Amino acid sequence: MIFEADWVLPIVNPPIEQGAVRVVDGRIEDVGYAEDLRSRYPDEVFTNFHHSILLPGFVNVHTHLEYSVFRGFLDNLAFPEWMLAFIGARKRLNTDDYVASAMLGAMECVGSGITTVGDTVSHGRATLEATKAFGMRTCAFVEVFGMDDSNIPGVLKNLDQRMERFRGMAGPLASLGVSPHAPYTVSGPLYSALMAYSMGAGVKMATHVAESKAEVTFVRNGAGVLAHDFRELVGWDEVPWMPTGASPVKYLEQWGVLNANLLAIHCVQVSQADIEVLKAKDVAVAHCPKSNAKLACGIAPVGDFLAAGLRVGIGSDSLASNNLLDMFGEMRVAILLHRASQLHTQALQAEQALHIATLGGAQVLGLDNIVGSLEPGKRADIIAVDMEYSHFAPIDDPVSALVYGANQEDVFFAMIDGEVVYSRKKFPNIDVAEITDRAMAARAKLW
Amino acid sequence: MIFEADWVLPIVNPPIEQGAVRVVDGRIEDVGYAEDLRSRYPDEVFTNFHHSILLPGFVNVHTHLEYSVFRGFLDNLAFPEWMLAFIGARKRLNTDDYVASAMLGAMECVGSGITTVGDTVSHGRATLEATKAFGMRTCAFVEVFGMDDSNIPGVLKNLDQRMERFRGMAGPLASLGVSPHAPYTVSGPLYSALMAYSMGAGVKMATHVAESKAEVTFVRNGAGVLAHDFRELVGWDEVPWMPTGASPVKYLEQWGVLNANLLAIHCVQVSQADIEVLKAKDVAVAHCPKSNAKLACGIAPVGDFLAAGLRVGIGSDSLASNNLLDMFGEMRVAILLHRASQLHTQALQAEQALHIATLGGAQVLGLDNIVGSLEPGKRADIIAVDMEYSHFAPIDDPVSALVYGANQEDVFFAMIDGEVVYSRKKFPNIDVAEITDRAMAARAKLW
Repeated sequence: MIFEADWVLPIVNPPIEQGAVRVVDGRIEDVGYAEDLRSRYPDEVFTNFHHSILLPGFVNVHTHLEYSVFRGFLDNLAFPEWMLAFIGARKRLNTDDYVASAMLGAMECVGSGITTVGDTVSHGRATLEATKAFGMRTCAFVEVFGMDDSNIPGVLKNLDQRMERFRGMAGPLASLGVSPHAPYTVSGPLYSALMAYSMGAGVKMATHVAESKAEVTFVRNGAGVLAHDFRELVGWDEVPWMPTGASPVKYLEQWGVLNANLLAIHCVQVSQADIEVLKAKDVAVAHCPKSNAKLACGIAPVGDFLAAGLRVGIGSDSLASNNLLDMFGEMRVAILLHRASQLHTQALQAEQALHIATLGGAQVLGLDNIVGSLEPGKRADIIAVDMEYSHFAPIDDPVSALVYGANQEDVFFAMIDGEVVYSRKKFPNIDVAEITDRAMAARAKLW
Repeated sequence: MIFEADWVLPIVNPPIEQGAVRVVDGRIEDVGYAEDLRSRYPDEVFTNFHHSILLPGFVNVHTHLEYSVFRGFLDNLAFPEWMLAFIGARKRLNTDDYVASAMLGAMECVGSGITTVGDTVSHGRATLEATKAFGMRTCAFVEVFGMDDSNIPGVLKNLDQRMERFRGMAGPLASLGVSPHAPYTVSGPLYSALMAYSMGAGVKMATHVAESKAEVTFVRNGAGVLAHDFRELVGWDEVPWMPTGASPVKYLEQWGVLNANLLAIHCVQVSQADIEVLKAKDVAVAHCPKSNAKLACGIAPVGDFLAAGLRVGIGSDSLASNNLLDMFGEMRVAILLHRASQLHTQALQAEQALHIATLGGAQVLGLDNIVGSLEPGKRADIIAVDMEYSHFAPIDDPVSALVYGANQEDVFFAMIDGEVVYSRKKFPNIDVAEITDRAMAARAKLW
């Protein structure tokens, strides 16, 4: 099976005009000029995607698919108020609702060319069922909370039970990870214990860190809305919390959880010294430009992360703090935010944005040996983007066209692990209307 | 003729669920619940746009349609270097190329729901022909340059001749304006003379102002790349220029050109004092968030403009400094840039963004008595947006769905002045392939 397109973007090599990709048994076997592949494989079946760009599926390194029905529900709140309102609203849904919600999210991902997600899961069944139904590749990070150190063994035992249960539900393309929620909801000792657990289990760990100024104020000064209103709301106002004097990143370093196994999500409120620590410890970063902007958290210095040589991927975050699972929008907004705030155009350009949205993301999730680029030997996670719309003309640089011009709806084909999971607006074996109806019913419970 | 939709957004009133708009002789006659209109006009022909949102056409208050073939050509340059490269590249095209380029731009506008443009024209024929061909509403601002005050009468005479010529070419929906280019290309005395000319001719004036730090440095200190490289490139290095000590806004005030007839484009590098001056003089502002970000000029304080009560519209700027003529993207990016930089969510929310992209823009161009909202008595400039895509679900607030979620391709219907100019991806009487081919040929000359 050979797919041909006007442009093929291998990511690890320059764009190939009139290129093609050969897929055999779910694996990429050859990538090159269509003409060359035609002569090398004269008997092979060719599918020609006219007026299109073929590239590796996007890797969305941070989202929460189970919160998809929250789209547009909390549009006008900044981070701390958003968090408080979100915690209240979350309780109105049950696990079946979260499954419906994750199905909606997985459907949007696949239809938008996102073939792999790093998904933080609270109701693990939701994401695992949804991504299995859509044939997606997933690293499901099981979320952990806990500020009361008297109960660390209990928390670990509960985690272990959930991990085992979720492992039983996971499809062939899913792996599990561990996710301590954030420095304002997980104590230092629990962070340490969870890193030890992750390393022992041979799984990745991810955590939200340095997302907001409110978090910095909490960690550094033991004060602010996260120390008071938030802890009261979740019933932790009796659990002691002392100012640490440290930045969130340095605080995690003190508890020994910064290493190459950690994915640090957000990293908005970081200093140059924090970035140096992240680099020294080889921590990977999930950059979530739109979510950070919408919640008024700020702009992560992604140019500095790249300049420091950090592994960086792009995350949409959940639809509770973004409104689209659209990697084109994330790439574009990342560049615009960076340029507008830094007043220079260097350090984040289209090629870099596309890199971190694909191979960079795969590196962040430890999947770069199997996906993230179109290279012989990798699994066949491939998407095709339609260039028919007039807003792609004139096109002479497909990377510029994609990053600055494409929208999620322009994706018309997605293959994951060699299976066609989306083609010409259709998902095989999926009842779109049923998913939408179930999601709408869950949404109705939020009001 | 009555159009029905799931949602009708009159802009001046809250969204109407299951609403309808009655159009008679190119004029909006009635707006309300579909049920009520059905009973009021039982014999009328109803067109039901299922799963859609009906709203007034977007008003893009600042663009240069003639530069559409520059899309993606200068992606990586910041403002001053971009300007120098752009001036060099512009010369490679002739007027026919600019016509082809403007046709591409007008096509993208109409297909994206932009029914009115404030267009700055250098080759006036291009925009006037293109917008006439697509049935668009246009205010074409004729651009003027001049730093040598010995020639002001000559410049005015030339402008007058162009205005007369362009008036002969303009279609029934076009009006003309005058546009001194910018404080670094137009002298103070010429600015004054042009404002007198505009007022005398009863036309609007628009000017780029306070776009970049380079401009501030030029106006205030008489220094920097615009004082040296730029003036050499355009052959003005013999024309004297002295530091003024003033901000660009204050400088224009000194020359008496700030008044309600002026549209100030960009206003990125402005102080609170500048904003107060703009307000005191009732100057209107064109906010161009994506262009300003892409050229690394910064983020205009649009929240402060709105708080001060200034008239504000949104402009895409040209495809030489943006890559899309997409008002959804402009609204969304405006909000995200504002929130990320100000660290709060107030002062720019979805309703406000939609307002400035429609009625606010009409106010800025002095057209709010005829377009910008769905109100009886206004001309019928109406668009419809498809909500079928799963990324609109769950939808319970159509304004949030549009501003945070829609893309230009979701527009499937556009009517201007009662004429259907776009319907289900088709433009009546337009050969899309021919336009694209001509634009591609012009583009090829740039390399």
